[in-house]
Amino acid sequence: MLNPFDDEHFMRRALAEAEYAFEKGEVPIGAVVVANNRVIGRGHNQVEMLHDATAHAEMLALTAASEFLNSKYLTECTLYVTIEPCPMCAGALRWAQLGRVVYGAHEPKHGYSRFGGEMFHPKTEIMGGILAEEAAALMKSFFQNKRK
Amino acid sequence: MLNPFDDEHFMRRALAEAEYAFEKGEVPIGAVVVANNRVIGRGHNQVEMLHDATAHAEMLALTAASEFLNSKYLTECTLYVTIEPCPMCAGALRWAQLGRVVYGAHEPKHGYSRFGGEMFHPKTEIMGGILAEEAAALMKSFFQNKRK
Repeated sequence: MLNPFDDEHFMRRALAEAEYAFEKGEVPIGAVVVANNRVIGRGHNQVEMLHDATAHAEMLALTAASEFLNSKYLTECTLYVTIEPCPMCAGALRWAQLGRVVYGAHEPKHGYSRFGGEMFHPKTEIMGGILAEEAAALMKSFFQNKRK
Repeated sequence: MLNPFDDEHFMRRALAEAEYAFEKGEVPIGAVVVANNRVIGRGHNQVEMLHDATAHAEMLALTAASEFLNSKYLTECTLYVTIEPCPMCAGALRWAQLGRVVYGAHEPKHGYSRFGGEMFHPKTEIMGGILAEEAAALMKSFFQNKRK
C-alpha cells in the first residue's frame, strides 16, 4: 500500500523547494520540516537573492518551523533536505535538537560528514540517500548551466 | 599612544552587545562586524526571544553586515565575538569568507575548536583571548543567576 506520509513523500516536497531555487538561479537545495505528518516549515536556498551566506534552505526551514511552534527545540520534528547539510546547518540542527534529519545526496566537499557524526545532537537520528539521484541531478544540471 | 580602533576597542562594542543580551535574559554573547574601522553589523544572542536556535549573535551580525554591504562575502571584514564561536557560527563565517575573526573567551564545550581549525575558511585569520576575562565573567554571572 502506498504511504502518503513516508520519507519519499516529504523528500519530494523538499525537492519542489530545490526546483524553486533552481528557477531563481540559486544553488538548488530545498528543505522542509515535518511534525505530525505536516509540513510546518520550508525553505530553499536564497544566498544570492538575500546576499546572505547564511540563507541556506535548512536554516530558513528551521527558523520557519520554530516560528510556527514557538519553540527553539524541534525534538518531535523531522527535517528533510535534498543535499547533505554543511557544518553550519548541522550545527543549527544540533542546537534545535531535531528528532530526525533525512537528506538526499551526499556532498563530499561541503557536507558535514568530514567532521564526523558528532556535529549532530546525540539524540538526532540521521538518514541519507533518500531520492539522492534526483537531488544530485538537479545540482549537476545547475552547475552545468552555470559553466555554459 | 591610544589606538581608538584596535581590537580591544571593537571587542568592547561586542561586550556591550553581550550586556544587552544579559539584561534581556539571553545567554550573554555579543558580536560586531567591522569594515574600515566602522561597525557595519551587530548582534546579540536572541535565541529565547525569537524562539530560534539559530539566532546567535554572530549569525545576526553577519546577516546585518551582508545587508549593509549587499554582499554575501565579507572578505574585508573582521567579526568580533565575545565567546568562541560554535560550529554553526564557524560554518557561517566560513561561507562568508571573513577576513578576520577575533573572539574573547574560549568555550571548550560548545566551541568550534574541538572540530579543528578547518571549520573556518583557509584565508580567515583567527585570534582568540581578547578581553576574555570580561566575556567569561559575564557568562559565569548569567549562569549563576539562572541556578538561583
